[in-house]
Order: sequence, then structure tokens, then C-alpha cells
Amino acid sequence: MKPFYSSYFTLVKALLVGSLSCCNLSYAEQTQNVILIIGDGMDSQQITMAKNYYNTPRLLMDSLPVRAMVQVQTSAEDKPKQRVYVADSANSATAIATGQITSRGRIATSAKTDLDLKTIAELAQQSGYATGIVTTASVTDATPASFISHISLRACENPSMMVDGEYFGGTKTNCPNDLIKNSGPGSISEQIAQGQTDIVLGGGLKHFGFNTEDETSTVLALAENNQYQVLQQKTQLEQLNTNGKVLGLFGPSTMEVQLQGTDGRKAEKPNPSLLNHIDWRIGSVEMPATMGCEKNPEYKDTPDLALMSKAAITHLQKRSSRGFFLMIESASIDKESHARNPCGSIGEIKQLNQALQQALDFAKTSPNTLILVTADHGQAAQIIPDESLFAKVGVPIYTPGHVARIVTQGKSTMAINYATNEFPVEEHTGTEVPLYGNSVAQGLVPASTTQIELFAIMKRYLAL
Amino acid sequence: MKPFYSSYFTLVKALLVGSLSCCNLSYAEQTQNVILIIGDGMDSQQITMAKNYYNTPRLLMDSLPVRAMVQVQTSAEDKPKQRVYVADSANSATAIATGQITSRGRIATSAKTDLDLKTIAELAQQSGYATGIVTTASVTDATPASFISHISLRACENPSMMVDGEYFGGTKTNCPNDLIKNSGPGSISEQIAQGQTDIVLGGGLKHFGFNTEDETSTVLALAENNQYQVLQQKTQLEQLNTNGKVLGLFGPSTMEVQLQGTDGRKAEKPNPSLLNHIDWRIGSVEMPATMGCEKNPEYKDTPDLALMSKAAITHLQKRSSRGFFLMIESASIDKESHARNPCGSIGEIKQLNQALQQALDFAKTSPNTLILVTADHGQAAQIIPDESLFAKVGVPIYTPGHVARIVTQGKSTMAINYATNEFPVEEHTGTEVPLYGNSVAQGLVPASTTQIELFAIMKRYLAL
Repeated sequence: MKPFYSSYFTLVKALLVGSLSCCNLSYAEQTQNVILIIGDGMDSQQITMAKNYYNTPRLLMDSLPVRAMVQVQTSAEDKPKQRVYVADSANSATAIATGQITSRGRIATSAKTDLDLKTIAELAQQSGYATGIVTTASVTDATPASFISHISLRACENPSMMVDGEYFGGTKTNCPNDLIKNSGPGSISEQIAQGQTDIVLGGGLKHFGFNTEDETSTVLALAENNQYQVLQQKTQLEQLNTNGKVLGLFGPSTMEVQLQGTDGRKAEKPNPSLLNHIDWRIGSVEMPATMGCEKNPEYKDTPDLALMSKAAITHLQKRSSRGFFLMIESASIDKESHARNPCGSIGEIKQLNQALQQALDFAKTSPNTLILVTADHGQAAQIIPDESLFAKVGVPIYTPGHVARIVTQGKSTMAINYATNEFPVEEHTGTEVPLYGNSVAQGLVPASTTQIELFAIMKRYLAL
Repeated sequence: MKPFYSSYFTLVKALLVGSLSCCNLSYAEQTQNVILIIGDGMDSQQITMAKNYYNTPRLLMDSLPVRAMVQVQTSAEDKPKQRVYVADSANSATAIATGQITSRGRIATSAKTDLDLKTIAELAQQSGYATGIVTTASVTDATPASFISHISLRACENPSMMVDGEYFGGTKTNCPNDLIKNSGPGSISEQIAQGQTDIVLGGGLKHFGFNTEDETSTVLALAENNQYQVLQQKTQLEQLNTNGKVLGLFGPSTMEVQLQGTDGRKAEKPNPSLLNHIDWRIGSVEMPATMGCEKNPEYKDTPDLALMSKAAITHLQKRSSRGFFLMIESASIDKESHARNPCGSIGEIKQLNQALQQALDFAKTSPNTLILVTADHGQAAQIIPDESLFAKVGVPIYTPGHVARIVTQGKSTMAINYATNEFPVEEHTGTEVPLYGNSVAQGLVPASTTQIELFAIMKRYLAL
């Protein structure tokens, strides 16, 4: 029997250690997992829109005990030390994935110097963790791409885009330094096809249908040659039972979203009378009629984010006993805000929470799982008064932008304003963005943090 | 000497209690204070604007260990159970001050039924706490008024507004049920003058210059008769040394703000060319020139929020050994956003942080001080890209609203968009709002909360 003082100090130590760091005692020996869930464009306005629509003060993510705000970080391309105040998904995902601030459009490469930046997924893989990517966008889209590829321009998603590719609005894309013949890594789809990510699920099949740069096969065949089992149907995902690598491509491009406005309506312009056109103090204005949200008829057999997330988690457990890093993105919160469709965004926030449920369910059985939920940048949508604060003045008061008047499940009308530009696609905004963490995040995440700190937090947790 | 097992268990208990609730051991015996700091309209966009302008990832409030988001709560006037998704400062301050959701424009009164709702300041006073209000608005403005008065309409700030008063934009105000002759409490300034709040500091002198409803004296004389020492100069505040009640009125209405845009410029409309007027895809647009922020030349001897806060804290300590409730408002974050002046808002966020420094300094010597910093509702301002995300498309892309292009202390350009309406005054928005708390708030404030829960948290902390 030990002398009493020994057990006495053992008890004291156990109490102290227990309260301070209960789960780090056998840190190196245990399985550790990180599940990073990104709501693209999911700022505080978007989250409130979803809460209002579903008539609840709290979504599932609000049940998480850790909450912080994250500074979004972007630099100028030509002056990497100069800040730019509004990000795109490429540079902001790069900041989270690599811990380095870069310029808009860049995928895990440095501003000006164009160096490849090691990602959290690559570091995890090197240390024996399994890695996975799940997204409702193309798997080649900026957010997923920033974790598992390196390229100077996000639009170089497939071999056809590398030289004089045609992109959004007729803009030309060129990634000459990234061509394989110039000792580069090739287009994003080629990099994914040749990569070692254990499971990649999302849309973007079209980017794998092109021939590879050397024209020897399609990118899809390249992936199959690299031992990827390719899935294209929801049923294949439901029945997934393999120990090998998996590439799921469930649609040509961005996956369908779950909700749309009634009859496919989006935000619309108020219609002022002729008199009001002449002088803002007179005449009248016809506001867009209210609408509800309805199921998107195109959604059909699209696998949802929860199903993809669950499948990825199950699969990753098989792939390494060390644990895994998994990035899950609900991509179209952003894309539907660009398109002025609040119902679209709201449905995808619901999807994100359903995916979070899968992560939380898993963490019950695997408690050393750090779950972080965040956004990559702000978006255009604003909840504005359906009746102006100044309605009593008696003049027509209305947004110069587009507005959608959504009847919520609380049977009240929520007006969503989109007014960052008059272009067919709205801008992002520069607001700091929310972060939520599970109990494992307690003590790891400060109340106010930055995107590059998120990288450091995940890296530290996985002891990379 | 006690037997050993006693000291053993005492130690174990001390360790456990120490780690779980170090400061609650003599809960009832100790002085307890609540300092509630409200940034009017201080949503995540506004906070990011200030961080960007001052070129820092963290303001002082970001150093606080507790962070949460707060649902803003508003009801319809005729259907008090139906939600309205955008608040004004009256109903949102009422929710925080009384724990009851009400309709826009109401000051601590209930929607439809028009009942007076007991405020946290009144409850604290009844329990022997000292109470104080500090604001950069008129002390009769919606936020401060909701803590220390009760009236059906926020515009009824003084006796002249109670019957056919003329308010913003020529709207008429009437508060017949609140007239003293109708057994009501009178206008807001009369209620403050007749009240028992230990210290009230801010602007709004003009509301005290009117005769009282019974025409027997001015409202200011009413306050003096009610034993208020009235201050009107910064030097009087600096030299304050009284044990009595204090009413400081440092300007006729809203106090001057610290910053303005260069040469007083605010956000302006982009100026499209004639061709672009004809078709959005052609022509060009002239954007407003960049500007800096400069000192407001009208600020002069205005006492700043930190000075007022420090004076209030010092004074409240004299007034009760039980402790105090103090509400501090930086009001013009909101007012300057209504007016499309981002520099104005930014300077007032700095003022809020300077006031917070006073609160934190005090809490070092009086550790049972719960400090909460929050906003009452969102505001119009959005940080948008100074160069559009879609600039490469080559067409003119610009906001339909007003934009200010601010050169920050980081020597980069931040574009602030105001586009909720075309009226001279922007709208609020419906976003959930930030909350920060000091270490005392740990365990008291959930990561996701509501305005009426904030009331309950403060009430519980003061054991009211």
C-alpha cells in the first residue's frame, strides 16, 4: 500500500487535471477527429433568416456551447501585406485551410509569389489521418478545392479552363504556371483525381468529363486509375461498402438546392409609380407580393448533405485508426444569396444543421472529435422592415435593390433586401462571421478569432 | 485541531467549489453590480467596420471571454403574439429592460394592452441598488427611456409632444393615455425629472426646457425640486462631488459625435454615365472619391462616453453599498448609420470601447461586477467590395444605394454600402446581434440567447 500522502496528492492531481484537461491525458494515443463545417456566406443575417423562417430562436448549431466571431482575411494580389476588406470563397477557404492570407481567386497558393501552401488536409494525411471533403457545390469549387488542391485561379476547375477558358460573363481564364507541362499540378479536377483524399463527395461531374491535359484519358478515368470508386447515384452512396477511396459526383455542377420561392420567384424590384419616378416624395410604390418557400422540383434524387456527411464519417473511420479530418460545406447558402433567392439559402442552412446532427451523433461515440461550424464570408442579404420604420411619414419608402417578402412558418412577413449591386449576381460583404464549436472546442477557440487562427487550432488539435 | 479528514475534505471541497463557482460563496453578502453597455445598431458589420478602420483584428470588447449572439425581439402592436422581424430601439431596449416583447415605438409598455412593464432599473432600485443611465443620445431617447420610464410612444419625449406634437418628417405624436391629467405618468422628460434614478447623464437639455404639463414650472425646475443636481458642462462632471442625485444634460439633443468623413462627406450615390443609364451593360460609372475620417469640429467640449461612464460608476458607488445597475449607451453608432456616415459610427464604437475600459477598470476592484456589451438591433451599413467580385466581366458594377469609400488606418479602401431605402434615413436590419461578457458572465450567458433572456440573466445576477 502506498503511503497516504501519495494517494492524497493523486486525488488532488486528478481533480485538478480532471477539471483542466480531462481529455488530453492520453492525447497521442487516442483517435482524434476534426469535422469542419462551412456554411458558405452564412453570416448573422443568413442565420437569422433561417431562424425566422422556421420560427425558432435556436437552430441546432445554437445548441453548441462555444461561440465566437471570426475575422475574414484577404490580401491584395500585388501587395500581399495590404488588406482587402471583402473576401471570395477561394481566399477565405485558403486562409482556413492553410493558415495563410491570400488574394481573391487563389486556391491554396500565395499572393504574388504563387507558392503552393500546405493545407490542413494534406498535413493530416501526412500524419496518418484519413481525410474527406463533402460539399453541395462542385467538388472543384473554391471552398473544397482550397483544402485539396493548389492553383492560381479558382476558375481553372478542369483541363479545358487552363488556357483561354471561358468563365462567368465571358471572362477568360488562364493558369499557365499550373499546367502539368510547365511542371504545375494541373487543373483542380485533375489534382483531385490524382490525389489521396479518402472520400470526396459533391457535384461537379462535368469537370471530370474532359480529357486530361495530356489527352490520354478523361479526368474521370484518371481518378479510376488512381483507385477511386466513382459514385454518381444516391443509391450507390446509401449502399456504400468499400475500403478503398471514394469519389462521389452527384450532378454536373452545383447540386440542386432543397427550397425555392413560390413558383420559383426570387427577390424583385419594387415598382414605383410615374409620379414617384419624378419626385421621391410623391406618388406610390407597388411592392413585390409576398411568397412562401416551396420544394425545388429539380431536387429529386439529389443526396442531401446529411446523407453525404454520414457516409463520409462512416467511411473515414474505416480508413485510419488515427482519426480523420473532414470538411463539410453547405455551399449554396452563398450561391442562392448571389442569385437573390432567400428560400434557397434558408433550405441550405437547414441542410447544414442536418449535417451537423450527423457530426454530433458521431461525436457521442467518438468524443475526441472537434466540431467547428463557421462561414467563410458575409453575403448580400439583409432583413429589412417589411413596413418601413418611417412609414408614418406617408411617402413611398422602398429599397433601391431587390426585395423578397417571405411568409414565414411563424405566419409573419420577413422582407429580405439584396442591394449590393445592380448586376445579375450580388456581392459578398466584409462582416466578421460566426463560429460555433462543440464541447471539445472549449478552451481551444477564443471568443474573437481569425481565419488563420482556425487553421492553427485544428492543426494543434490533431498534433500536426 | 480538527481531525485530518476534516481538512482533507475541506481541501477537496475548496478545489471543487473553487473551480466551479469561486465567487458565489458569499453571494448575498457581497456588493453586486451590473454594467450593461449597449451599442445602438452595433451589429457585426459595424464592429468589423471599426476593426478595419483602426486596423486591428480585436477591439477591447473582443478581449472579453464570453461571446454570444442575441435574438432581437419585436411583436406586432395589434397581435402581440405575432413577430415582426425588424426592431426599433424602443421595443428592443424594452425587451432587454423588462423581459417582455413589445411593438415598435413603445417604451416599457406592452403591445395592445399598453400596460407599464417593470424595468430592471426599477427592480434594482426597489431592492436597494443604486441605478444609473449614461447615453450619448438625449436621456429621453428610446434606449435610455426604456429603462427609466413608461410611455406608449417614444416620440413623447417632453410635455410639448404629448398632444399633437410634431415629430420627424411632420408626423404627429399623441400620448393621451400617458398625460398626467389622465392618470398617466407624463412625458419622458417629466418622468425622469420626477424619478429616483441616482445618476442620468447624456444629451437632451431641450426636452427639459418646456413647461410641465400643469404649467407650474419647467421640467428642469421639476428635476431640481426633486433634488437633482443638474450639470450642463463637462467641467462640472469632471469636478462632480456630491452625494445627491445627478442629472447631466450636455447638449440640446443627441450629443455630438467624435468623427466625421473628410469635409463632412457621407456616403454618396455612384454616378453612372448616360450610356449606362440606357443599358446597364454599357457606359461607365463614376464612383465617389475616397475619403478619410476626421474629427468633428462641433465636438469641442462634449464630455466623452468614458468620462460620463467613469463619473457614473464613481457616483453610484457612493449611493448604495448593495451595488448598482448601470446602463451605458453609445447611441450614435445607430444614428450615424441612419445618416450614412460610417466615420461617425466608427468613432462611436471607439467611444463604447473606451467606456468599457472604465467598466473593466472598476471591475478589477469590484470583482462581483457583471459586464455585458450588446447591441439592440442591426443597422443598414454593409462592407462591400471596393472592386466588385465581378470586375473582370468589364461592365460597370455599382450599388443602387449610397457608398462611402473610406481609407483606413491600414491604408486600404473600405467601401460601406447603405441601400435599405432611398429615403433620407436608412432602415434598421433584423440580424441577430453580438453579446460580449466579462468573466463574471461565464456560465450565466448561453452561446445563443434572446433579449428577454438578458433581462432574466441580469435579474438573477442581482437576485431581484
